[in-house]
Amino acid sequence: MKKQQICILGSTGSIGTQALDVISQHPDRYEAYCLTANNSVEKLAQQAHQFNPAAVVIANEAHYDELKNLLADRPDIKVYAGKQALNEVVEASPVDMVLASMVGFSGLEPTIHAIKAGKKICLANKETLVVAGELMLKLVSQYHVDLLPVDSEHSAIFQSLVGEDMNEVDKILLTCSGGPFRLFDEERLRTVTAADALRHPTWDMGAKITIDSASLMNKGFEVMEAKWLFGVPAERIQVLIHPQSVVHSGVQFMDGAVKAQLGVPDMRLPIQYAFSFPERLPLKGERLDFFKTQKLEFFEPDVAKFPCLQLAYDAIHQGGNMPCVLNAANEVANAAFRKGQCSFLGMADIISKTMSQVSFDANPDLDVYLSTDREARKVAASYL
Amino acid sequence: MKKQQICILGSTGSIGTQALDVISQHPDRYEAYCLTANNSVEKLAQQAHQFNPAAVVIANEAHYDELKNLLADRPDIKVYAGKQALNEVVEASPVDMVLASMVGFSGLEPTIHAIKAGKKICLANKETLVVAGELMLKLVSQYHVDLLPVDSEHSAIFQSLVGEDMNEVDKILLTCSGGPFRLFDEERLRTVTAADALRHPTWDMGAKITIDSASLMNKGFEVMEAKWLFGVPAERIQVLIHPQSVVHSGVQFMDGAVKAQLGVPDMRLPIQYAFSFPERLPLKGERLDFFKTQKLEFFEPDVAKFPCLQLAYDAIHQGGNMPCVLNAANEVANAAFRKGQCSFLGMADIISKTMSQVSFDANPDLDVYLSTDREARKVAASYL
Repeated sequence: MKKQQICILGSTGSIGTQALDVISQHPDRYEAYCLTANNSVEKLAQQAHQFNPAAVVIANEAHYDELKNLLADRPDIKVYAGKQALNEVVEASPVDMVLASMVGFSGLEPTIHAIKAGKKICLANKETLVVAGELMLKLVSQYHVDLLPVDSEHSAIFQSLVGEDMNEVDKILLTCSGGPFRLFDEERLRTVTAADALRHPTWDMGAKITIDSASLMNKGFEVMEAKWLFGVPAERIQVLIHPQSVVHSGVQFMDGAVKAQLGVPDMRLPIQYAFSFPERLPLKGERLDFFKTQKLEFFEPDVAKFPCLQLAYDAIHQGGNMPCVLNAANEVANAAFRKGQCSFLGMADIISKTMSQVSFDANPDLDVYLSTDREARKVAASYL
Repeated sequence: MKKQQICILGSTGSIGTQALDVISQHPDRYEAYCLTANNSVEKLAQQAHQFNPAAVVIANEAHYDELKNLLADRPDIKVYAGKQALNEVVEASPVDMVLASMVGFSGLEPTIHAIKAGKKICLANKETLVVAGELMLKLVSQYHVDLLPVDSEHSAIFQSLVGEDMNEVDKILLTCSGGPFRLFDEERLRTVTAADALRHPTWDMGAKITIDSASLMNKGFEVMEAKWLFGVPAERIQVLIHPQSVVHSGVQFMDGAVKAQLGVPDMRLPIQYAFSFPERLPLKGERLDFFKTQKLEFFEPDVAKFPCLQLAYDAIHQGGNMPCVLNAANEVANAAFRKGQCSFLGMADIISKTMSQVSFDANPDLDVYLSTDREARKVAASYL
């Protein structure tokens, strides 16, 4: 059996490192063909020594010399730098699939290159669908590539749909832990810090998405992601606050049957499933123990307390380049909150103001997305 | 589209009447070809007037004249009586599928006739698999018929397996409400009556199965049923006490993913799914409201407090005709409990004693099952 060659965009992040764990559990099936990082040059060099990819890319060109030095003992590994190099490595002919696990808007261009090169896409980088879902889906269809979800919720929905007919789906049930501030009142929300949010995540995730999860912006993004992946309007996607994070999401069919995927919170499962679909492979790790779990709860989301979710719904209803504005403003606000430059509730203010100010385009193409992203970042930054 | 002709064995029971409701929701797809009952002659005549089957059968021949009179105005409906007639109507060439929803051992012979006539079997009558699972599965394979589960748990497992590979299954998760006496201590269990059990069933079921559910014998039967339907040994079938009856059962795969089917307790869903598989059809009725549900719990079953479940496991491990002995003794004990002739805890005593006394046969055929059933009933009755 030929080994599948995988290009991991963002191999030093949370998804990337867990993907390498999956690869190491199945050395007979998978090989890391190319690893990339933005700034984590030491970690990238260490991964390269361990996983022997054909190539590595450091997106920030300032780190090129350091990476080259760190891999001086490995002349067999090609070393590239710069954003253009990301667009090129995904196209390399040995690559069978690309794990898109970069963070934010920056993942859009390399993912589009991978689609155009006919590669199977395992998508963790939800912002690409948030920003440019319509364009992405058009390209996926035009280039006949497989687009597999890696987000745990979307993988759960996808798993619940295996062997089922989309025409028989009534609604999608998108679960949400509710984040670390679920039970806080507005007064407490006013003073929470990024450190508070990063302290107790249910899932092992990067810092940006952990903050997005605390503000529920992440769930708004996931509604958009589900809309594009499964072709279901937002009105038929129901968000369920489920603090135990055992039910990873599901689907209700027109006969009333609900199917759901459950498990421990382990991102390696959706990563591996995206790699191996339609097969399932063994995966070492903890198993769900219902007797320890005991209690599963479900609540309605509170969009008044968590306005980012409402802003995401507003962006969905406006359509066009508005989700792109939402995403850009959120990237700025999220980073500012992490640096202590704005408050938790201030993030929604910045995003809301940016959405009302950036010029609307009902039918954006890639160039419009790029210019919208630039403009929205500038506007959002002006409110800091 | 040709309408599917359905023969309902046991149309006046709980499953039968709900199946007729499903048929009435889809008059363009399904027709009741034949309706049968054991003793409920008036209800059978009323159903015949409403659903216009080609034939009706009353198993108890003493009611033949009465049924004939009640249908005197309907010369187009053929009226038969007697057990042999059940074996014959299922074979009628227009019949596309047979809903086996008789209660207990008595359903075995007509179901075997239906299999041999090549009919699709929708199986609600779990005792046929408990008693003669090996024989049934052999015939199903030999006559190339489809065997679809109607039990809500097994339908949930079946739905969770759609599009999946049985070789990738790690274990089956069989949920169980725990019955009305779940929280009773042994002292209270000593004095409970059939009326106590019949007062608050979670599911709308017949009296026999409601008592079996209270004693957990029903769950033991369902372990056997799952074993035969899905080809999974009992050791890999985990019973989960789940008092809310929202998770109807599920499957854990070798990558750790659990898939489950959830819903309100409505037997019409598994009935309709067995009819319509692999399609799903709309079904009017209540939908699961996660916000009302809120809390789902899971506990380990207590086989010390509910010894019938342990006896079922013992019968599984012994194999041969022992499950047939278990079932016959249980039918006697269950009926006796309902008549106030034995106590709740006395049922397990009778079954246990019967199991140790009836002659064991490791490789039974149909004749052995029939003689074992007779002998076990006699032995069990002697302990009343």
